Parts: sequence; C-alpha cells; structure tokens
Amino acid sequence: MSRADRFLNACRGEPVDTTPVWIMRQAGRYLEEYRAVRAKHSFLDVCHVPEVACEVTLQPIERLGVDAAILFSDIMIPLEGMGCRIDFAPGPVFAEPVRTAADVAKLRVCEPEQDVPFVMDAVKLIRRELAGKVPLIGFSGAPFTLVSYMVEGRGSRDFPHLKRMMYAAPEVYASLMDKVSQTVVRYLNAQVAAGAQVLQLFDTWGGILSPADYAEYVLPYTRRVIEGLDRSVPVIHFVKGSGGFLDLVMQAGGDVLGIDWHIDLAEAVRRVDGRFSVQGNMDPTVLFGPETFVRERAADVVRKGRAARGHVFNLGHGILPDTPVENAVALVEAVHEAGKR
Amino acid sequence: MSRADRFLNACRGEPVDTTPVWIMRQAGRYLEEYRAVRAKHSFLDVCHVPEVACEVTLQPIERLGVDAAILFSDIMIPLEGMGCRIDFAPGPVFAEPVRTAADVAKLRVCEPEQDVPFVMDAVKLIRRELAGKVPLIGFSGAPFTLVSYMVEGRGSRDFPHLKRMMYAAPEVYASLMDKVSQTVVRYLNAQVAAGAQVLQLFDTWGGILSPADYAEYVLPYTRRVIEGLDRSVPVIHFVKGSGGFLDLVMQAGGDVLGIDWHIDLAEAVRRVDGRFSVQGNMDPTVLFGPETFVRERAADVVRKGRAARGHVFNLGHGILPDTPVENAVALVEAVHEAGKR
Repeated sequence: MSRADRFLNACRGEPVDTTPVWIMRQAGRYLEEYRAVRAKHSFLDVCHVPEVACEVTLQPIERLGVDAAILFSDIMIPLEGMGCRIDFAPGPVFAEPVRTAADVAKLRVCEPEQDVPFVMDAVKLIRRELAGKVPLIGFSGAPFTLVSYMVEGRGSRDFPHLKRMMYAAPEVYASLMDKVSQTVVRYLNAQVAAGAQVLQLFDTWGGILSPADYAEYVLPYTRRVIEGLDRSVPVIHFVKGSGGFLDLVMQAGGDVLGIDWHIDLAEAVRRVDGRFSVQGNMDPTVLFGPETFVRERAADVVRKGRAARGHVFNLGHGILPDTPVENAVALVEAVHEAGKR
Repeated sequence: MSRADRFLNACRGEPVDTTPVWIMRQAGRYLEEYRAVRAKHSFLDVCHVPEVACEVTLQPIERLGVDAAILFSDIMIPLEGMGCRIDFAPGPVFAEPVRTAADVAKLRVCEPEQDVPFVMDAVKLIRRELAGKVPLIGFSGAPFTLVSYMVEGRGSRDFPHLKRMMYAAPEVYASLMDKVSQTVVRYLNAQVAAGAQVLQLFDTWGGILSPADYAEYVLPYTRRVIEGLDRSVPVIHFVKGSGGFLDLVMQAGGDVLGIDWHIDLAEAVRRVDGRFSVQGNMDPTVLFGPETFVRERAADVVRKGRAARGHVFNLGHGILPDTPVENAVALVEAVHEAGKR
C-alpha cells in the first residue's frame, strides 16, 4: 500500500498501512516558506492566483510528510461569487452585511466555473503537481458558517444580528440559507469536476448553537448540501463544538465525522458506532509542549482512533501560527509510527 | 412557601412552589440604571465601594423579579489580594503576567479580611438591605480560570502561555494552581462568614481543555477547593463548555451543576442522574428574539428541568449587554408561570 492510499482508505473505512494524517491549516503562518510567499502576496492574491495557491498548498506535503493536500483558499471565496464584497482586515469584513429580505434578494447563486474559475484552475494545477503522491481535498464553509459571517458582516462572539434574524425573521434566514446552500453544492461539485478527491465541509460556527437550534436552523440545510454532492468522493463533515450533539451531526450524512478536542476520541468513536470514519482530534495547543509530550499525546489519539471504522488523524482545529514547525514534523512521524498495522 | 425559599430549596433538591430563576450578570449593562451608576463610577470603583456594589446588586431584584441576588464584583478581585496589579481595558490586563517559578514565588495567598475587606463589607451591607427578600450568592472564579488570566496576562483565545506552562513546566503550573486554590477557599469562606447564603464557582475557561487535560490539570484543584468550603451553604459549580465531560465535572463535588446551552438540558439531567441539582441553560441570545419566542423557549427549559433533583433556571452564560430589558422581565415571568407546582 502506498502513501497515496491511506487517507482515502481511512475515509472509506478500508484497510490502511498506518493512520493517515493531515493538519487543518497545514499551509499557514507557522511555516517559514508560507510567510515568505505572504511577504510578496496579499492573502487574497494567494487565493486568487492558481500558481501561488498551488505553491503554498504543496509546501507542507514534503516538509511535514502529511498524507493529504488541501486546496489553499478561504471559505469566503464563493461568497464573492454571490456578489458580496469582502475585505480581509485580517478577518473577513463585508462591505454590506446581509440583514434584510432585500439584501438576500440581491444575492445570486454562485456559478463557480464563471464566477470563481481560479479555484478550479488551482485544483487542476495542484493535482498535476501532486502527480498522485497524496490525494487533494477540496472544501467549503458549510451554509450556517458562511451565513454567520454574511449577516454579522465580520467575525463575532455572540452573533446578535444572526440570532435576531433566525428568531425574529425566520423566513429571511431560510431564504438566505437556501441560496447559500445551493452555492455550496455547486462550488464543491465544481471542485470535484476539476479533480478534488475528497470534500470537507467546515461548520466552524455550528457549535455556537443549542442542540435544538442546530436541529432546526442548520441540520436540514447541511443534509441537503451533502445529498447534493457528487458522492464519487468521500465527504468529511466537521462541526466545531458539536461534542454535545454528535447524534444530530451524524444525521447530516457524509463519510467522515470531524471531532474537536472537547470530547474524548474514545467516547466519540463509541457514539459514532461504526457509522462513520472519524477525523481528529488533538488539541492544537499540545504542539506548544515539549516534543516528547507531543509524541505521547499523538500516540494516545492514534490508539483511541483504532477503534473507529476508519481514523484520519488531525488536530481538533487549525494549527496555530506560533506553533514550532519541528513539533508539527514530530507529530506526523509519531502518528505514522503509532498507527502502524 | 415564600420567594425567599425557592432558590435555596432547588439547590438542595427540596420542594419548591415554582422554578426559581436568576440571571448571570443580572446587574449589568443591559440595565439603564446600571449604566447610570457606571456613568459616575469606574468598573473597579463599583467593585471596591460597598455602597455602590450594594446599589447595583439590588437593581435587578425588583426590576426583574429574580429569586436570588449575586454580589456585584469581579473574579479578578482576590488576585489583587495576592499581589497582582490589574487594569480593566475593559477586560482584565495584568501589569506583570505570571509565567515563571519566580513570578509564582512573589505571590502571596490572599487574606480576604485584610486584603479585600470591601468585599465582605459589601456582602454584609447587601444582606442587610435585602432583609431576607431573596438569598445572596457569593462567588469566585475557579482556580483554572483565574490562573488562565494570570498567565496570559489578559483574555485569550488559544492560551499559548498557559499551555506552554502546563505542558512544559508542570511543577510551576501546579504551584501556581495551589496558591490560587488556597486563595479561592479563603475568599469564598470569608464571604460565607460575612453572610453569603450560596456560593458559585465560575470556571469560565475549563471548557477550552480536552477531557483528559481537564481531569489532569483542573479537576484535582477544584475538588480540593470544594472540599475546603464551608458547606453550611450550597455550592454551585459551573464549567462553561463542559457538555462533553459532565461526568468529570461531577467528580469535583458541590450541590448544583451549572449547564451551558451547548447540551440539551434533558440530556444533562439524564447524565447527572439525581446526584446534583442543575442550573441553566437557555442560550443568552434567545433574548434577542421576539417576546413570545422567549417565553416558549423559557417554558421548554423549565419543562426539561422538572426531571432534575432540583432546577434553578438561568442562562447558559451571562446576559448580553444589548439585551432588551423587557425580554429579561418576560423571561422571569415565563419561568415562574411554567414552573408552578
């Protein structure tokens, strides 16, 4: 079995030679070579220019030895294709937050090949450059996370505008979620058509909700998105902060359930009960500890993951900017060592 | 049964006439009369001057009709008594973050009656002014939450300095947690001696950890704190974000378990299994919705809480500054109505 197979096999619950590993935000500020690219190009340029996106996507593949590449992009990109104007300062800031029925009416469903062709160009270029070494993950923000930003107009802690819309103008919320969901389906399927071999749906903000609200305001849309995807490729669904309602997240479908570090992986594997593979779940801040500590913690997660249908090792959230690179390298080594079959 | 009894009875699992309710941060910016006081006094002044602390503590009692008062103060206050210099800008900022063994050695265990006598004076004054109408809650930050601020020097999202200390210098971390734990015990017992009738321990940041880290780095200290408390009064223990490891939180002891909104209250009650009363758990942003919606959601939480040994209605976190007061008033009414026995 080759390095190229273990990630896809784990997603599908098929045999692996060792536990595969990739790291959310693996092409990021903790890498000197990434910072060098960013010294020459703005964040949006890196997303918009296929050659540059390809360059940073490939950086961690050799440096860390991870078993998958993930398209370098930002979850806001398809919203540009819906007609939103977005700056990064450094988080996303919308020139015109979406708050009323009229605001929603002005948005169009994104046509990825026409509106954001550079994404598909990047996917094709990366596949060519990877030459089969490891699979390429395409991704999108899930509708709720995208809508959270669109309504607040920027990152938020309490999401007051979003909550007012959800609770006081549910029909406006529903029409917005509907348009964004259609966009997400087209955007992900276009990535598969261009060559993405796995899809990950990131619901970064799903966990701000109570389980009842998640079931009412999020789950129906995510389920419809996953039903609409080209299922020739495995789908990873990650709802950060969903340890309290994994049972609901599972109802959305997909092949792999992302798990953050607020729930023990052994407990998550028990709840998933063989219905999904799992991805996760080491606390990203463990990488601030000494190398021996990192290796012990990684081995512990690998051990717990062995009870799952399939396990893709990852952090429970993106790798942090001030992480020592040598610890990320040690992490990947430790996973491969501990995961040997 | 009088309004004065229902909160204490619910804490102890004894009969109530209706579900008692108070609201975390009930004396806060959403109240016009609080903003009026703050126009004349800095935040620290309100904490430091017993007459002013008393005034704002009493504000929500009549306005909302809640069943308990909570001392107006800040969780940083006992740290002043340990020798820390703290500004509010508006969140706490430490002049000298605590990062090394030498930093820890410089700290003293707080002697509440000598170092922060104004807190006990406020408790006595508030008890006198309340004249038995509703009970008074004393409180403290839990050791881990206090240490998080001390090490980072301010609020943080990823707590890199804290994690480095925990993972790379565990003996420094342990000695700091130990000193802070001793302070918390003395601080809470001094409040009881002054007249506090219930104690709440707030572990705002406990939920940033994985369950394994919570068990190793937090639980032993919290357990020791609760064991050291004057148990003539009930103890409420609230670890925000602990829905994934309530079983561990229960091992710390106490009488009432605080529950945030990321877990369904019915599910929490099942896990608690009669061993504790519960407090919570409505999403604070529900109060941004229309009044009928607020009343429905409140009634739903009350209904789920009836299966518990005892239930104190509260939000899953502090009430937000831009909450409409009339919704907070409607909430308290709705809880009392739905909770009638």
